[in-house]
Amino acid sequence: MESFVLHPQLAEDTAWIGRIGECQLLLMKDARYPWLVLVPEQTGLRELHELSDERFSTVTQIIKRLSRGLQTLTGAPKMNIAALGNMVPQLHIHIIARREDDASWPGPVWGVGTAEAYTDDELRVLAATLQEALLT
Amino acid sequence: MESFVLHPQLAEDTAWIGRIGECQLLLMKDARYPWLVLVPEQTGLRELHELSDERFSTVTQIIKRLSRGLQTLTGAPKMNIAALGNMVPQLHIHIIARREDDASWPGPVWGVGTAEAYTDDELRVLAATLQEALLT
Repeated sequence: MESFVLHPQLAEDTAWIGRIGECQLLLMKDARYPWLVLVPEQTGLRELHELSDERFSTVTQIIKRLSRGLQTLTGAPKMNIAALGNMVPQLHIHIIARREDDASWPGPVWGVGTAEAYTDDELRVLAATLQEALLT
Repeated sequence: MESFVLHPQLAEDTAWIGRIGECQLLLMKDARYPWLVLVPEQTGLRELHELSDERFSTVTQIIKRLSRGLQTLTGAPKMNIAALGNMVPQLHIHIIARREDDASWPGPVWGVGTAEAYTDDELRVLAATLQEALLT
């Protein structure tokens, strides 16, 4: 089996959180939103519906767990879940905690303004918090 | 059990296609994109992860079926799937067939430009086509 390689754009835009159910869990490096990206480790996938029934069930259950967990952790009033992939074809699912006072509310987050960097310290603490809350 | 009422904004923006698995299947009245909206008929739902395990499995399987079916029907190179709900809180899932020459490619469709109306004839034909392709 061909070994899975994360798309370079996703690798550039995100920080590593961990693995869950043969998916990579990543954090978008944009301090404006708590923003997870889930990437099933299967080469050549573009669409959610291309997952086999078993993998689809696993991946969607993980989405459910991450959405609930991130909402609980952040107290955000709304979650946004999306698989778009118009720019980066490798299947990836966005799980974003939204607030009425965030940078693009009530619109979607994509293509709005410029990402704000986390500091290295913020990123380290946040990654550890997310690992603890979502992957254990 | 309280009877389910579709959010008035969704009722205004969409045309009726049919019912599937205790969900309403609707067509966004925007001729720029083949754009389905799926609404689980459960009062008070806001988040995908609030569905019970059984309903979550049913609803996500329907999403898979609709996404595959709409891509097959339209020949679109990319599907966009999203549960956002920042403006209309009633849980609804967007299933949108995207093309490189559509009105907002490669960005997301929400909040871009103005919806283009279907004619009554177009809407009648499209609804019948979608019923045949997706619900039978």
